Amino acid sequence: MILTPAIPFVSSLDEAEELIWLEALSQAMPDESILPLRKLTENERKLSEVAIVANPDPADLQTLPNLVWVHSVWAGVEKLLQQPVASHYSIVRLIDPELSRVMAEAVLAWTLFLHRDMPAYARQQTKAVWQPLPYVAASDRSVGILGLGELGRRAAQALSEQGFKVQGWSRTEKRMEQVQCLFGEEGLEQILKQSDILVCLLPLTTTTEGLLAGDNLAKIKPGAQLINFARGKIVDEDMLLYELNTGRIKHAVLDVFVYEPLPRSHPFWTHPNITVLPHISAPTTVQSASKIVAQNIRNYRHLSVLPDTVDTLLGY
Amino acid sequence: MILTPAIPFVSSLDEAEELIWLEALSQAMPDESILPLRKLTENERKLSEVAIVANPDPADLQTLPNLVWVHSVWAGVEKLLQQPVASHYSIVRLIDPELSRVMAEAVLAWTLFLHRDMPAYARQQTKAVWQPLPYVAASDRSVGILGLGELGRRAAQALSEQGFKVQGWSRTEKRMEQVQCLFGEEGLEQILKQSDILVCLLPLTTTTEGLLAGDNLAKIKPGAQLINFARGKIVDEDMLLYELNTGRIKHAVLDVFVYEPLPRSHPFWTHPNITVLPHISAPTTVQSASKIVAQNIRNYRHLSVLPDTVDTLLGY
Repeated sequence: MILTPAIPFVSSLDEAEELIWLEALSQAMPDESILPLRKLTENERKLSEVAIVANPDPADLQTLPNLVWVHSVWAGVEKLLQQPVASHYSIVRLIDPELSRVMAEAVLAWTLFLHRDMPAYARQQTKAVWQPLPYVAASDRSVGILGLGELGRRAAQALSEQGFKVQGWSRTEKRMEQVQCLFGEEGLEQILKQSDILVCLLPLTTTTEGLLAGDNLAKIKPGAQLINFARGKIVDEDMLLYELNTGRIKHAVLDVFVYEPLPRSHPFWTHPNITVLPHISAPTTVQSASKIVAQNIRNYRHLSVLPDTVDTLLGY
Repeated sequence: MILTPAIPFVSSLDEAEELIWLEALSQAMPDESILPLRKLTENERKLSEVAIVANPDPADLQTLPNLVWVHSVWAGVEKLLQQPVASHYSIVRLIDPELSRVMAEAVLAWTLFLHRDMPAYARQQTKAVWQPLPYVAASDRSVGILGLGELGRRAAQALSEQGFKVQGWSRTEKRMEQVQCLFGEEGLEQILKQSDILVCLLPLTTTTEGLLAGDNLAKIKPGAQLINFARGKIVDEDMLLYELNTGRIKHAVLDVFVYEPLPRSHPFWTHPNITVLPHISAPTTVQSASKIVAQNIRNYRHLSVLPDTVDTLLGY
């Protein structure tokens, strides 16, 4: 018998996707009743202290007057933070070690893709050209990671273990073994100017939106390659196209875009120096995320403990 | 002043490549005189106990009657072993830790290329299709390494550290931590049937020539992917094409071929499920190889010690 009030699941997912989440969450929390928001009665809405969310319409959350906190099943929560008025609830985002592992794997995979010249060899293959390209040792390849949160740190570690020269950049000063940690304006200039491969893993905040545009994009080392696995709005897409066309940026691997899915007519699809990925660098695995959400909700029910909440000013 | 007899450099390289090697070798051994074979006098040829070789014509080595050993600047020495009569000298092949590192990096890079579905995403991009594919965790991906010599062991280690399920196969029984080591006929059948990604790092010998043909190729797990970074002749190219066309083998990454450079008219170039590479998985770096050759020749001159020589029956 379930004794706690129903937990609303508030999302912008279609019904099939919603059902997958509801099943996995219910399985991870057999003591809780988890229902789509639309199935809660007026009274149940009043009783809700916690909601589980997946890209929700903030207006939906306004129908839960006593909401204390929401748990996102994803790491990115920028939409929840773009509300005109401050929300009455705290926001918890998913911090999933499996997600960090998968993201670090993706960063390693596509860094090696660029490091070992896979785009150039693929182009040569289309012309039946047999031409070995000069090999650059990993120790001579400088990789810069923008963002040293959970994801950035683990990615930096993985690259460093493969022998790359790794620098990391964050807003505030951080420390890591074997990774040179830069910060602030000056550090940003240094990492842009020195990295042969630049990997963006920043959260989208008011500070990072458009960070790779204008002067900053123009500071990137000539011939450098870019990987964006964070959010599309961090990079100015038109300026990036310009830098790719001049050849100053050699290749870009883009998993995120200002508009997703990337419109079929977008010039990125056909650009020879862009690898387009459909937002797959670190897919949330429903099972692993559900287990983490379940543990956090159990701690709240039994110990009245909330996980770390998002700083709504910083945005992460 | 150089006091030792000149060392002949015997190769099938063109003059420009020969010069690069001669310079690097001379720099690594300032106490030795290293000359192209054609520049040695009759008397100097008689005095030669050691030669440095790069894919030499075995007939050239017959002109050095007192040759004790030859040092190959490459790891593969199958051509030297294909002589009708036994040679009068021992063969030392290059064992270069830097080469093992670069090969392990290549194995990791192209395993991740297959693991993270890069060929499928590239195909989708040509059609502007935005379609995330199901993510398979590395721990659910079985990678089989054929060959557990220097290169195979290091590659298996690197894959295991990335969380893959790794099995290795060799002719005789070997042991490794965190890698299941199989051997013999029975082990071969097991690794072929179980691997999602199969990586060939075997030396080319009379036993391994055509190993991946006929029954063995037909034992490969349906839907598996193949990486050949060893020698072209280990795989039956026509049968591989057949298995790729039926879809039983999903994709092949080939760096080595029966004829290299791969002829422009070869069907591999245009096959949608083959990635053709121009023999670049582990390029010998001239500097690093020259240093190792130099150290081995120094040990021979001063300590009369020969490095491990190739077993001409086993072929490695």
